[in-house]
Amino acid sequence: MKELSQKNLTAVIHPRPQNSHKGTFGRAVLVGGNETYGGAIIMSAEAAVKSGAGLVSVITAEKNHSALHARLPEAMVLHWELTQETSDVLASSDVILIGPGLGLSKQGHDLLREVLLKQKASQWLIIDGSAITLFAQMGCSLNYPKQVIFTPHQMEWQRLSGLSIVDQTKENNQLFQKKLGATIVLKSHRTEIYTPDENYKNPLGTPAMATGGMGDTLAGMITGFLAQFQDKKAALLAAVYLHSLIGEELSKTCYVVLPTEISKHLPQYMKYFENLDRKTEEK
Amino acid sequence: MKELSQKNLTAVIHPRPQNSHKGTFGRAVLVGGNETYGGAIIMSAEAAVKSGAGLVSVITAEKNHSALHARLPEAMVLHWELTQETSDVLASSDVILIGPGLGLSKQGHDLLREVLLKQKASQWLIIDGSAITLFAQMGCSLNYPKQVIFTPHQMEWQRLSGLSIVDQTKENNQLFQKKLGATIVLKSHRTEIYTPDENYKNPLGTPAMATGGMGDTLAGMITGFLAQFQDKKAALLAAVYLHSLIGEELSKTCYVVLPTEISKHLPQYMKYFENLDRKTEEK
Amino acid sequence: MKELSQKNLTAVIHPRPQNSHKGTFGRAVLVGGNETYGGAIIMSAEAAVKSGAGLVSVITAEKNHSALHARLPEAMVLHWELTQETSDVLASSDVILIGPGLGLSKQGHDLLREVLLKQKASQWLIIDGSAITLFAQMGCSLNYPKQVIFTPHQMEWQRLSGLSIVDQTKENNQLFQKKLGATIVLKSHRTEIYTPDENYKNPLGTPAMATGGMGDTLAGMITGFLAQFQDKKAALLAAVYLHSLIGEELSKTCYVVLPTEISKHLPQYMKYFENLDRKTEEK
Amino acid sequence: MKELSQKNLTAVIHPRPQNSHKGTFGRAVLVGGNETYGGAIIMSAEAAVKSGAGLVSVITAEKNHSALHARLPEAMVLHWELTQETSDVLASSDVILIGPGLGLSKQGHDLLREVLLKQKASQWLIIDGSAITLFAQMGCSLNYPKQVIFTPHQMEWQRLSGLSIVDQTKENNQLFQKKLGATIVLKSHRTEIYTPDENYKNPLGTPAMATGGMGDTLAGMITGFLAQFQDKKAALLAAVYLHSLIGEELSKTCYVVLPTEISKHLPQYMKYFENLDRKTEEK
Repeated sequence: MKELSQKNLTAVIHPRPQNSHKGTFGRAVLVGGNETYGGAIIMSAEAAVKSGAGLVSVITAEKNHSALHARLPEAMVLHWELTQETSDVLASSDVILIGPGLGLSKQGHDLLREVLLKQKASQWLIIDGSAITLFAQMGCSLNYPKQVIFTPHQMEWQRLSGLSIVDQTKENNQLFQKKLGATIVLKSHRTEIYTPDENYKNPLGTPAMATGGMGDTLAGMITGFLAQFQDKKAALLAAVYLHSLIGEELSKTCYVVLPTEISKHLPQYMKYFENLDRKTEEK
Repeated sequence: MKELSQKNLTAVIHPRPQNSHKGTFGRAVLVGGNETYGGAIIMSAEAAVKSGAGLVSVITAEKNHSALHARLPEAMVLHWELTQETSDVLASSDVILIGPGLGLSKQGHDLLREVLLKQKASQWLIIDGSAITLFAQMGCSLNYPKQVIFTPHQMEWQRLSGLSIVDQTKENNQLFQKKLGATIVLKSHRTEIYTPDENYKNPLGTPAMATGGMGDTLAGMITGFLAQFQDKKAALLAAVYLHSLIGEELSKTCYVVLPTEISKHLPQYMKYFENLDRKTEEK
Repeated sequence: MKELSQKNLTAVIHPRPQNSHKGTFGRAVLVGGNETYGGAIIMSAEAAVKSGAGLVSVITAEKNHSALHARLPEAMVLHWELTQETSDVLASSDVILIGPGLGLSKQGHDLLREVLLKQKASQWLIIDGSAITLFAQMGCSLNYPKQVIFTPHQMEWQRLSGLSIVDQTKENNQLFQKKLGATIVLKSHRTEIYTPDENYKNPLGTPAMATGGMGDTLAGMITGFLAQFQDKKAALLAAVYLHSLIGEELSKTCYVVLPTEISKHLPQYMKYFENLDRKTEEK
Repeated sequence: MKELSQKNLTAVIHPRPQNSHKGTFGRAVLVGGNETYGGAIIMSAEAAVKSGAGLVSVITAEKNHSALHARLPEAMVLHWELTQETSDVLASSDVILIGPGLGLSKQGHDLLREVLLKQKASQWLIIDGSAITLFAQMGCSLNYPKQVIFTPHQMEWQRLSGLSIVDQTKENNQLFQKKLGATIVLKSHRTEIYTPDENYKNPLGTPAMATGGMGDTLAGMITGFLAQFQDKKAALLAAVYLHSLIGEELSKTCYVVLPTEISKHLPQYMKYFENLDRKTEEK
């Protein structure tokens, strides 16, 4: 397994093209947040906006809209029903994240089914949280294109792959990744990434990050990075590494690192690595 | 085309008169924010309040009121229906902004029609976002006075002027401005301003500002500047220039600049240019 | 007229008694905030809590509760209906503020009437904003005790006293104060205070404070000061002076000073003057 | 009585185990916040999350959900009804806090009854605020296990123990603690802790903390500490001491210390004492 490093950041976080507009940096749609887990999709949305997605829309239970706007007026909101409007918004997106706080109800099931059935060849799809469990329940029988990233923690990976946690060895994980075709971000205190062509290990991460919402924030960052950067695999690796890097940095002064604190610091950290890259190139 | 510069700020941002009250700095009414795009009008309101409008009222879908108050208790809120109360508030305003997050529904159409029909000779009107599209759909047949500023991006300008993006040359833009009579703020990475007597180019702007809500914030700043400063054209030029200047400054430490961060820094930047002016005069 | 000075602060803001609890610093009830002006009572509540009232309850339209809690979970909320619960909360309070964002509807009228009729000899009452207009409409015919402070701006003072703005001379104001019995805080860029025994002038204040909500914040500060300090007149004078002093200090770096920024800085400024006092006494 | 000291912090706040996940740091469920006192449970939740509980769920009146998410998306929310879902969440928790802002209605009574009846031998229960009064009204006749902490102020202790405030001597308090079996945190300006094997006195605390919500914050901190640290008595002592220590530190620059400010600073203070411990051990 290749180990992620700072080079994964400088390879991706470059100066933005001068003649650009918000569309240049991608349209992201986030689907999740039921009546109980609304905070999850709010945290994902903060990470997507603050990591630089051009336009972010959130499809979530209506009771979450006010809190989302109170924290993040930059995002648009839609009720999580399959209407023409939600269909249009999904169809016009570049990246779709589904799962944070989605829950296991029929509502979540129907949304996931819609997203899987209608995914276009040009769209990337990130399947996180309860959507992974729902996907496993569906029996993987749906026909869908390959630009899919799953972001399970170990229990969700067990549900998806059938591998019990003790059997989640690199070899077994890799075998199941091949079967599934999609990219796997297997989250743990040392996250592993299984892609069609290569596997990666994240050397960073701290127990200060072991708190509810950290995965929702990572999913939002991956969404934001995929929305704006062209090399999707490189964008994914950068998002995973940066998430842990910021967490480790903040943990130097914080016993517990809140997920929303990671998002808050994204613009500064991304700038730092943009500049680092530029300086290196100038030499 | 004249190029905007720091002089456009020092020409406008002067020490406030000592014997003044909130009415001295103008009543602004902002109309927009439907069920999906509520964040847009919230961002405009933040920009209007923090740039110094004396009193700010927001006419928006009721579901946005709580989030608006949670972020900005300084603003008043009204449901976006044509009641006696909304009519009275519109009639007593000095500046009206319509459009951010308004949407293209009948509701938005009716509000725009009301605003256009009742605009007084003493009132300035800023037409932004979906209100530009609605205005174009109305066929420009409504009778309205000249104190109107349109703030289209290139696609909205195409809808309004009929000029495709490649045909949006200075000459063509200027010709259509003459036809329309109103002032045009044509937003792009180098915004241009077409007024009845002169045209301007903004030399500032950064791709870090290419994110959803940046235009809503600019529209709110223009509203705040027109509300409080007497020379309306000078106020417009200052608002456009300052919006980009703050964005560029913040982009020195942020990979992406959130629109709400621009508003947050308005009081400090305006103070800086007020002092600069005073110091220059004292010499 | 006596001029307010820093001595009005050090005379009041002393070290708190060691053996105390939240009840020691008073129960304040704030009544206001209709469907449109909810922000007003939110700003008053922030000022009351952050200036140190022991317990703050807010009686306001239910649609404002969520935004109030989102900004200030320290306050309790009640719907603005005359129920047994609101009656009990009013009866058990030490200070009542009525008026910020109350509006002129029957709802507001009934609440003001209730408050005036039931005011106890031990309670102080601050009548602000639309409650002043309502009080004037009632014809001052209600029977009420003397611990009342009115906080009108010049137009509201005209409605209450019948004095047109040009006739609002010190002599005329003083005459009407005698007639009314209550204390008057006549707000302008140089606020004047008329009390039964002496009149005062505030030398501070800046046009950077001329923005919507500044009066609501002052009313909240007066409430917080009266709740916790024993000498009520001295507390009032201190609140008026400190409000302007913080405004002037913040205006050194801000072109416009938001009312909520004043409240945010209250704990620090009050500490500064507590320490100043202690140091002076030690000499 | 033993006096609490900094050693109570370094004994508990250790570096977290490397190979951990959010479940390692405990599931906390917080029950409280009726239609009027929603802010109380919001403040408890902030303290529980920011002190490091792994997962925090809040069972509260639905009208509080939006404000809670606006401040703290890290928490999950459930309506305060006895449904299968609330039952399941309670059953799967490690620590339950009931009481902040709960009120004395039947709703609160039924929730407390459910919690008491179903408490498992593996669960710790903190009974605070109105739940103490409700518990007293129930006549202590319910059968419940011993891992219970009551956090009364003096009036609530009177209701629970029958001891009038003047009779609340160490001896009497200790006698009633023996009768009750549970641990008692008797809050005052010098909080006392009565446990089955030993009693403690908190030497810290400042009148700047005498403001509404401070007890809700303490209850949330105790919950967060019990969720993540194994030695429950040591965790309780540390939470009580740290709450006052942060309050005292903040009171050096703030005349009044808001409860939410204590929570905001938790991650930094806990880090400080983690490091202090590590440095001491290295010598």
